Amino acid sequence: MRYHALPTHGGRRKTAGDTVPLDLPGIRRVVDANLAAFLDDRVRTAVDGRLPAEVPGLLKGFLDSGGKRLRPLLCVIGWHAGGGHGDIAPVLKVAASLELFHAFCLIHDDVMDNSRTRRGQPTVHRALADQHTSDRSRRNAERFGTSGAILIGDLALSWSDELVNTAELTAAQFSHVLPLIHEMRTEVMYGQYLDIAATGSPTDSLDRALAIVRYKTAKYTVERPLHIGAALAGADDSLRAALSDFALPIGEAFQLRDDLLGIYGNPAMTGKPCTDDLRDGKHTAVIAIALQRAERDQRQLLTSLIGKTDLDADGVDHIRSILSITGARHAVEQMIRTRCEQADRALAQAPFPPAARHALRTLARAATGRTG
Amino acid sequence: MRYHALPTHGGRRKTAGDTVPLDLPGIRRVVDANLAAFLDDRVRTAVDGRLPAEVPGLLKGFLDSGGKRLRPLLCVIGWHAGGGHGDIAPVLKVAASLELFHAFCLIHDDVMDNSRTRRGQPTVHRALADQHTSDRSRRNAERFGTSGAILIGDLALSWSDELVNTAELTAAQFSHVLPLIHEMRTEVMYGQYLDIAATGSPTDSLDRALAIVRYKTAKYTVERPLHIGAALAGADDSLRAALSDFALPIGEAFQLRDDLLGIYGNPAMTGKPCTDDLRDGKHTAVIAIALQRAERDQRQLLTSLIGKTDLDADGVDHIRSILSITGARHAVEQMIRTRCEQADRALAQAPFPPAARHALRTLARAATGRTG
Repeated sequence: MRYHALPTHGGRRKTAGDTVPLDLPGIRRVVDANLAAFLDDRVRTAVDGRLPAEVPGLLKGFLDSGGKRLRPLLCVIGWHAGGGHGDIAPVLKVAASLELFHAFCLIHDDVMDNSRTRRGQPTVHRALADQHTSDRSRRNAERFGTSGAILIGDLALSWSDELVNTAELTAAQFSHVLPLIHEMRTEVMYGQYLDIAATGSPTDSLDRALAIVRYKTAKYTVERPLHIGAALAGADDSLRAALSDFALPIGEAFQLRDDLLGIYGNPAMTGKPCTDDLRDGKHTAVIAIALQRAERDQRQLLTSLIGKTDLDADGVDHIRSILSITGARHAVEQMIRTRCEQADRALAQAPFPPAARHALRTLARAATGRTG
Repeated sequence: MRYHALPTHGGRRKTAGDTVPLDLPGIRRVVDANLAAFLDDRVRTAVDGRLPAEVPGLLKGFLDSGGKRLRPLLCVIGWHAGGGHGDIAPVLKVAASLELFHAFCLIHDDVMDNSRTRRGQPTVHRALADQHTSDRSRRNAERFGTSGAILIGDLALSWSDELVNTAELTAAQFSHVLPLIHEMRTEVMYGQYLDIAATGSPTDSLDRALAIVRYKTAKYTVERPLHIGAALAGADDSLRAALSDFALPIGEAFQLRDDLLGIYGNPAMTGKPCTDDLRDGKHTAVIAIALQRAERDQRQLLTSLIGKTDLDADGVDHIRSILSITGARHAVEQMIRTRCEQADRALAQAPFPPAARHALRTLARAATGRTG
C-alpha cells in the first residue's frame, strides 16, 4: 500500500517545480493501515497459538485512541527531504515502527507516572486493572494492571523492531538506519531517566531542565525520525546536519510548549489533568527559571507546593501566580519564540525540496503554537 | 577475543574424533568479557555525554552479581551442534547479547513480582530506592526505584540488540538469526503475561501451568538459544528439530525443578525466600495437581493459604504437607524424570558432534538435578 497511490488524495506527485505539497493525511492513513495490519496479524497468531490475544488487542486499541503520528510523519518527510525516490512502501513501514516504539514509551511512561488517563482514555495499566477487578482483589488487580502494562510495553518495543526488520529494506538502507534507531532508543531512555531522577525535587538548574527537553523530546520526537527517513533515502552527513539544525530548536520549542500546557492547558484538549506535572514535581524549564528568580518566600511557597500529592486548585493558582510574577512563564514563551525563529532560519537555508520544507513548516507551526 | 584462543584452557580443539570436551568455563569467561567491554564502553559514553552513567553501571553490577550464563552457553553449544566452524567471535557476542536480554527479563520480572532480592543481592529497583532515600521521601524513593528499574530494563533490552547488530555477523547469519531472536522475545513475554495473569488465582489446570513452563522457560531458556547458535552455524531445519526434541523436555524439567525449589529450596542456595512463590500465588504444575487431587477441605485450606500476603512458616508447612499427601510433589518429580529421560533419548539419537552432545548432557544434569 503506497500513500501516493491512493486515488482520492493523490499524495505527492512529481512535477517540474516539485511544489505539490506532501499529503500528510494520506501518509497518516497508510501508517495506520500498516500498524493495523501488523497487529491484526499478531491477534490471529495469538489466537492460533492459544496465547493471550488481548495483548495485541490492547495495543491496537491504544494506537486507535488517537495520537498525531508526528514521528511517522517526520520520518516520511525526512525521506523526502533527503531526496528519496523509488519505493516508499518500506519507508512507511519504518515510519509505522516509530509509532509502535512510541506506544511502548507512552505505556511505560504512564506506569512510571502512575497516570490515570491518556488521550482522554484510561491508560493501559488502568484499563487492565479495571478489567480484572471481578476475578481478583483490588490490590491484585492493580498489580496485574501494572505488570501487564510493563509487558505490553516490552512487546511494543520488540514488535517495533520486527516491523523494521520485515519492512523489506535494502541492505544499504538497513545498515544505515539501524544505528540511528539504536541511538534514538538510548537517547529517549536516558532522557526519561534524567526526567524521573529530577522529578520530585526540581531545582533552579535550567541546564538540567533543557537536557531533559533535548533527550526526551527534541532528539527523540523530531531529530531522529527525520534522520531515519533521510537515511532511508541515502542522505549524506551534511543533509543530516541540516535536519538537526531545524529539528533541535523546534523540538525544544515543542517540549517547552508541552510543559506550559501541563500547567496552563485545558484538560479537555490535552487529555490529562493539568495538575499532574505539578503534583509529580516535574523538573521543567519554567519551574527552574521561577526558582532562580523567586524571592525567598515565593521560593518557599513554590517548593512546598510543587510535588504535593494533594495539590488543590488554590495551590495551582498560587504556583501559576508565582510563575507569572517572576516572569518565568514569559521567559519560556520567549524561549519558544527564539527557537521557532531559529528553526525557521535553518529551514530557509536548508537544501530540502520545497515540498519537504513546506511540510516541516506546517508541522512546526501546529506543534508549537497549539493550545491543547 | 576468542575463547578457544585462550592459552590456559585451550577451549575446543579440532581433533580426529572431535571428542575434546567444550571448554564451558572458557566460553563463560569470554561472554563475560564481551558484556564487560560493552558496558564499560557505555559508561564512558555516558560520562562523556553527561548522561547518567549509573545506568550502565548498575547493569554491570547486576551481571557481575552472578548467574549461570546458561543461555549464552547453550547458544555456543548450539553453534557446535550445528557444525559451526570458522570465526567464533561473532557467536560469542550474540551469546553475550542473550545474557543482556536476560538481565532485562529479570529486572522487569523483579519489578513485577516486587521481589526484594535476586542472587542474594537487593534487586535493581530496591538498590535504586535505597540509594535515593537521603534526597527524597521514602515514597518518592520507592517510586524512583521502580521507574528507574523499568528504564534500566528497557535499556538492557535495547542494548542486547546493539550487541547483536555490532557482532559482525555475515549477512546470511544476520538474516537467519534475527527472526529467531524476535520469536524468542515474543515467546518469553507472552509466557510472562500468562504467568502474571494466572498468579493470585491458581487453578487445577495443568495445561495452563505447562503452557507457562513452555513459553517462559523451555522455549526461552533452552530451545531458542540453541536454535540461535545453530542458525549462526547455518544449520538446517532437521538439525533445528533435533535440538527442539532435546530442548523442550529438558527445559520443562528445568522449570518444574525450579518451581519445586521455590517451595522446598534452601533460600541460601536459591538466593530468594522460599515463600515468595506461595505468597504470590504462582500458578505452578505442583499446585495444579494438588488442587486436582485434594479432598474438599484440603482444597479449601490450600486455596486460602496460597496467595496469602502474610503467609507464615506454619502456613508453608501446611501447604507442603498437602502437596505430599496428595502425591502432587511426587507426581512432579516423576514428570521431571520422564522429561529428563525423553531428553536423554533425543540426545542419543541426535546428529550432533560428540563434544556438543557431551556438553548438553552435562548442562542438563546440572540444571535439573540441582538442589539450590
